[in-house]
Amino acid sequence: MWTLADIAKHIGATVQGDALYEVSSIATLQSGQSGQLSFLSNKKYKKYLADTHAGAVIVSEDMAPYVPQHALIVADPYVAYAKAAALLHPVKLAPEGVHPSASIASDSIVHPSASIAAQVVIASGVSIAEGVVIGPGCVILDNVSIGESTRLTANITLCEGVKIGKRGIIHPGVVIGADGFGIANDKGKWINVPQVGSVLIGDDVDIGANTTIDRGAIDDTTIADGVKLDNQIQIGHNVVIGENTVIAGCVGIAGSTVVGKNCVIGGGAGVSGHLQIADGVMLTGMTMVTKSIKQAGSYSSGIPSEDTHKWHKNVIRYRQMDKLIERVKQLENSTKSE
Amino acid sequence: MWTLADIAKHIGATVQGDALYEVSSIATLQSGQSGQLSFLSNKKYKKYLADTHAGAVIVSEDMAPYVPQHALIVADPYVAYAKAAALLHPVKLAPEGVHPSASIASDSIVHPSASIAAQVVIASGVSIAEGVVIGPGCVILDNVSIGESTRLTANITLCEGVKIGKRGIIHPGVVIGADGFGIANDKGKWINVPQVGSVLIGDDVDIGANTTIDRGAIDDTTIADGVKLDNQIQIGHNVVIGENTVIAGCVGIAGSTVVGKNCVIGGGAGVSGHLQIADGVMLTGMTMVTKSIKQAGSYSSGIPSEDTHKWHKNVIRYRQMDKLIERVKQLENSTKSE
Amino acid sequence: MWTLADIAKHIGATVQGDALYEVSSIATLQSGQSGQLSFLSNKKYKKYLADTHAGAVIVSEDMAPYVPQHALIVADPYVAYAKAAALLHPVKLAPEGVHPSASIASDSIVHPSASIAAQVVIASGVSIAEGVVIGPGCVILDNVSIGESTRLTANITLCEGVKIGKRGIIHPGVVIGADGFGIANDKGKWINVPQVGSVLIGDDVDIGANTTIDRGAIDDTTIADGVKLDNQIQIGHNVVIGENTVIAGCVGIAGSTVVGKNCVIGGGAGVSGHLQIADGVMLTGMTMVTKSIKQAGSYSSGIPSEDTHKWHKNVIRYRQMDKLIERVKQLENSTKSE
Repeated sequence: MWTLADIAKHIGATVQGDALYEVSSIATLQSGQSGQLSFLSNKKYKKYLADTHAGAVIVSEDMAPYVPQHALIVADPYVAYAKAAALLHPVKLAPEGVHPSASIASDSIVHPSASIAAQVVIASGVSIAEGVVIGPGCVILDNVSIGESTRLTANITLCEGVKIGKRGIIHPGVVIGADGFGIANDKGKWINVPQVGSVLIGDDVDIGANTTIDRGAIDDTTIADGVKLDNQIQIGHNVVIGENTVIAGCVGIAGSTVVGKNCVIGGGAGVSGHLQIADGVMLTGMTMVTKSIKQAGSYSSGIPSEDTHKWHKNVIRYRQMDKLIERVKQLENSTKSE
Repeated sequence: MWTLADIAKHIGATVQGDALYEVSSIATLQSGQSGQLSFLSNKKYKKYLADTHAGAVIVSEDMAPYVPQHALIVADPYVAYAKAAALLHPVKLAPEGVHPSASIASDSIVHPSASIAAQVVIASGVSIAEGVVIGPGCVILDNVSIGESTRLTANITLCEGVKIGKRGIIHPGVVIGADGFGIANDKGKWINVPQVGSVLIGDDVDIGANTTIDRGAIDDTTIADGVKLDNQIQIGHNVVIGENTVIAGCVGIAGSTVVGKNCVIGGGAGVSGHLQIADGVMLTGMTMVTKSIKQAGSYSSGIPSEDTHKWHKNVIRYRQMDKLIERVKQLENSTKSE
Repeated sequence: MWTLADIAKHIGATVQGDALYEVSSIATLQSGQSGQLSFLSNKKYKKYLADTHAGAVIVSEDMAPYVPQHALIVADPYVAYAKAAALLHPVKLAPEGVHPSASIASDSIVHPSASIAAQVVIASGVSIAEGVVIGPGCVILDNVSIGESTRLTANITLCEGVKIGKRGIIHPGVVIGADGFGIANDKGKWINVPQVGSVLIGDDVDIGANTTIDRGAIDDTTIADGVKLDNQIQIGHNVVIGENTVIAGCVGIAGSTVVGKNCVIGGGAGVSGHLQIADGVMLTGMTMVTKSIKQAGSYSSGIPSEDTHKWHKNVIRYRQMDKLIERVKQLENSTKSE
């Protein structure tokens, strides 16, 4: 239980109502009950504010008059909510030390404060820093290093030599440092090009479930500080992702492409290899990028869904544009000729 | 070995030929031999019927005259085949009890009839019902519950508090309940929004290999009874999937979208967040949905492949449509003006 | 350390400069130092050649005059580099024998020269050939067979009866032989169609991280010799992939489609089910294939990204093509009528 006063202090809010009122958990405006803390960030949910039963609501100043019970008034309700939620729902502490079923090479260094769960495998020459959590079934191959307070949930694979920064969160099924897709055609047969680079992951990087980041061919694949990756993203060898860039689920970025800082890439987008994407670029969902993007701004492609019958018709029209242009040309000539 | 009489009884068929004829396995019309059971469902394979060596064939009444050997006559050959195949090729029973290499928290409840394979990890407060099968390498985190007769193949991760219904099948590499992709921008730095919801999976739900279903931000992500998910699907936080909806491989559904009942979503389709998709909606493969769909029916997008040279040309035409419309407008004016 | 003479002999090169000069590792032209070997394959990197500090460079004959230090002259520098890199950076040998934490069914046959790592599970009736490496956390289910010298990195799942050829490389998170997506609608409820086929993988096949290949419904899913698959590819049941075909990341191929030999499929492409793709077909990235392709050649679809504002406009234009064609028709009539 936290008093609104305590939470206000933590998130930098002004209390409207009883500062000693206590809340124990987070809820939406619709589901909130007394003893719960809710928030209003997106104005389109304002309609739920008047009738909410949540004991307290985080709002911006202009919404405060409409809060039925107690309010915490802040400049940015969503950020404040994130911080309050972290206070009310702290990450469960993992037990320090090594589970007896874990298998750890004798020459690897694991900080005594780290938590190594059941069925974990830590190979040779690995270095695990203070406060790191390695969840069940993770496999850490030779010479990997993991920085302070980074957490691996479960069933994650870190391949040889991968370096992970501090305070990161890596979700289940992630594979970092598998061989990049490098092949050479030797008289009709494909031979592998050894992938001798590695992967460098900065600090405060989150990586979503089943995302894959390949090791570099010669130099390293690099993910800068503060990057947030959603699920099922594929990042090819020697890609560089700039600071604080955010990538949504199911995105593919092909080899050697450099993505700038503070970019936002929508779900299902695809970026070809060997391109440069400037800082501050936004790609909407399912956008197909085949050329470098040199200026900040929003870019899109793809045609949204329509009735399947209309779609068939439009696809045919699309293929007839050539003919149409011909017809217009003839009309222009015939009208001129008069 | 099963007699046609026994199979007919099980699938509700009429036998044409020797009811005591015995079959031991399923085969296609082309590969079938004596002692094998085949079927004809898609009429385009009718051409293989006359020459099949399969000892017996499941067919609809109109096809029965063309069956060279014995026939099982039913209304729906594909459904009947599915049931007969399940009879001839039953799921191998997993041994009851816990493999010695599994690691199970003392406060978790595992029904004695459940099968817990090698290298499994079951954390604290977990509840495993009657007849559940947990395959090798699965990781079940705190407070997960799994309903009767649900089977997890191998290397699956169920995160904290996830609830799975009865008779489900979950394939390798699936991750259920990883954190949703919730971030807030705090003066240029992204901070995580704690994901305190969970995932509720109904009864008779199948989930394909390497599919990921994220936990809710506040409320739960929900997959209703009878939903069938193929491989490598990404389902964002707080998505709701209605009863008996079927989703093919590589589909991405962004956060808070509600998909109705009895929908069929084709492979590689993408659905934006915070949308409503009505009951009975069909999306063809690779369709891009950016707005809610309020009526049942089939929807599509995307332009199918063509020769790369033509494609280049059409893309240029597409970008010139503006100019073309200008030219047509001028023509209209010039003809009017006469 | 290798002398240029030794490397020249291995890759079939002519030495320009000191044949006894020694190199120990691979580097790019930009990062190369003395004692390192670099290469120039793509002419667009020629600008870096003059200033490289790499002790030796693999080049084609025409580039040899511009190499500042020693050169290895070959017909195909990229292939030669691949072979030299394999010489300088050999795959680390895995220890022979079985790790004590691995769990292996008594009736499975593991060649004494094979390497079985920690936390591996090998079920019943499995056959592991000479020189096979099974990395940590892999799960090999009943009756799988793996051919000579094939390497599984970590956390891989091979399901019942899957057959893998020789000299393959399988990366983490791969799932081979999960049930194909076969369902039948029994009066409104979906029932599973038992998937009784398996998966056959040829020799020299590489499979990227988190790629999934489903087992066949009746016959087997088949991947021919020399196929190279990148990460996060989905291959449906009964698909056949021809020899030496290369598939980039995030591609989906739906059930029963047959892809020819020597095809190259770009990242994010999608191919519908039950199609035939001829030998020697190339698909550019994100191409959507809905019909069989009968002739070798390059095929494409999708419209590349543009400024979001222009995109909105073009999508509207696209939907108005019908009207435009109407207007052109009227103009044609009105001009005729004069």
